[in-house]
Amino acid sequence: MTRYKITIEYDGKNYNGWQAQKGLNTIQGALEESVQLFCGEKVSIYGAGRTDTGVHASGQVAHLDLDIESIEDKKNKLGKLTMGVNYYLSRNFNNEITIISSKKVNQEFHARFSAKYRRYKYAILNKRTGSPLNRNNSWRVPLPLNLQSMIKASKLLIGKHDFSSFRSTECQSNSPIKTIDDISITKNKDFIFIKVTAKSFLMNQVRIITGTLVEVGLNRKTEEDIKLALKKYNKKHVGPTAPAHGLVLEKISY
Amino acid sequence: MTRYKITIEYDGKNYNGWQAQKGLNTIQGALEESVQLFCGEKVSIYGAGRTDTGVHASGQVAHLDLDIESIEDKKNKLGKLTMGVNYYLSRNFNNEITIISSKKVNQEFHARFSAKYRRYKYAILNKRTGSPLNRNNSWRVPLPLNLQSMIKASKLLIGKHDFSSFRSTECQSNSPIKTIDDISITKNKDFIFIKVTAKSFLMNQVRIITGTLVEVGLNRKTEEDIKLALKKYNKKHVGPTAPAHGLVLEKISY
Repeated sequence: MTRYKITIEYDGKNYNGWQAQKGLNTIQGALEESVQLFCGEKVSIYGAGRTDTGVHASGQVAHLDLDIESIEDKKNKLGKLTMGVNYYLSRNFNNEITIISSKKVNQEFHARFSAKYRRYKYAILNKRTGSPLNRNNSWRVPLPLNLQSMIKASKLLIGKHDFSSFRSTECQSNSPIKTIDDISITKNKDFIFIKVTAKSFLMNQVRIITGTLVEVGLNRKTEEDIKLALKKYNKKHVGPTAPAHGLVLEKISY
Repeated sequence: MTRYKITIEYDGKNYNGWQAQKGLNTIQGALEESVQLFCGEKVSIYGAGRTDTGVHASGQVAHLDLDIESIEDKKNKLGKLTMGVNYYLSRNFNNEITIISSKKVNQEFHARFSAKYRRYKYAILNKRTGSPLNRNNSWRVPLPLNLQSMIKASKLLIGKHDFSSFRSTECQSNSPIKTIDDISITKNKDFIFIKVTAKSFLMNQVRIITGTLVEVGLNRKTEEDIKLALKKYNKKHVGPTAPAHGLVLEKISY
């Protein structure tokens, strides 16, 4: 049995998120199906982050165990696993999911539990009109956003806090206490990017943080709201959950 | 009668190009239909560039004449024409086409004939694996490209030349003589962007230039090939027509 670490990019638009569910299109399901088509083995694939319906990834990581021994290909830097599974992913899933790289790891490696940091990136298009070329990967906010007040407010969220107000009512985490290591907010032309780094996240946490910071940028919420939202559970002080299609799981660090 | 200049962005994937054709989905057709829904007037819309099937635009320009007098909206910088037509474009064409701006111009202005320069941008993804998040706006070339030899070869195409070898067999231009003012080739991570500027283009010219420069980057064609292709019509010395979905009409200058 050999363990492989795979890094995956996907367009989440047509999928019910990462996690396999009977009768639904999921990223995990598509990968497991394609691995089986490639080598005949029925495998379980463990992902580092359970992205929600419609959320994208440019650097999702997962691991799987395979019986077959020599899947390495010395002549091909990408390896037979990557190329073989990608063939079926491309054929059956419309190029929406691709393995970017794969490598042999030892049995101690666990995509989810070995992860040190996860980084998500949220893209806001701050523009009066829509952008047809970016409509599937950004949330359009038509009114002007005050970038400086968003950056200032974001600092309050960094560190260890009770994020009860910043999670979905369906979130199943045992504890609402999480530590955010970094939030960076940058502007490039009409886009504002919010990158959030943490060891782990609550369900919808990045999207509610984004929705709240946007309300701050629109002068509809204040730093005081964020302080109160972190103090105790109160949805009144947070913004809406930003739409899924603006979010990308960018990087998992081990 | 008032003449308006409109600037348009579109995702060309689901359209048979700019030019209206009976029974086909076209950008011009979608715009003319939406203007009529907005103000009841049956108009002809004249575009600056006739983009082909599947080609995108971030800065297409067109003009149209309207009878209605006061379409300006002093309170709304974008204007009633932009907002009104965008409402129908968004409703009936899935946010694939958007007017970015509109303004009153004098009757001498003609989107096509007044244009001084047109700039197209071609995006190549030079990467072994595909990129699901960029699959609709870039051409993936899996083998490594030699950027320096592409840049060097591109210089040969700048200036006034007979581009017979660089046009579609369906091209209806009277003359194959065109002047290319600039070609810039830049790299950003896995992407290579080729920007070509000229007063006007032949059909498929930018895509055949791109296909040829890619062959140079793969060491399959040489500068000698380009010199010969410019000397007289000979398809043997040019590369394939790069796929439509990597191309964007970026800017029209007046």
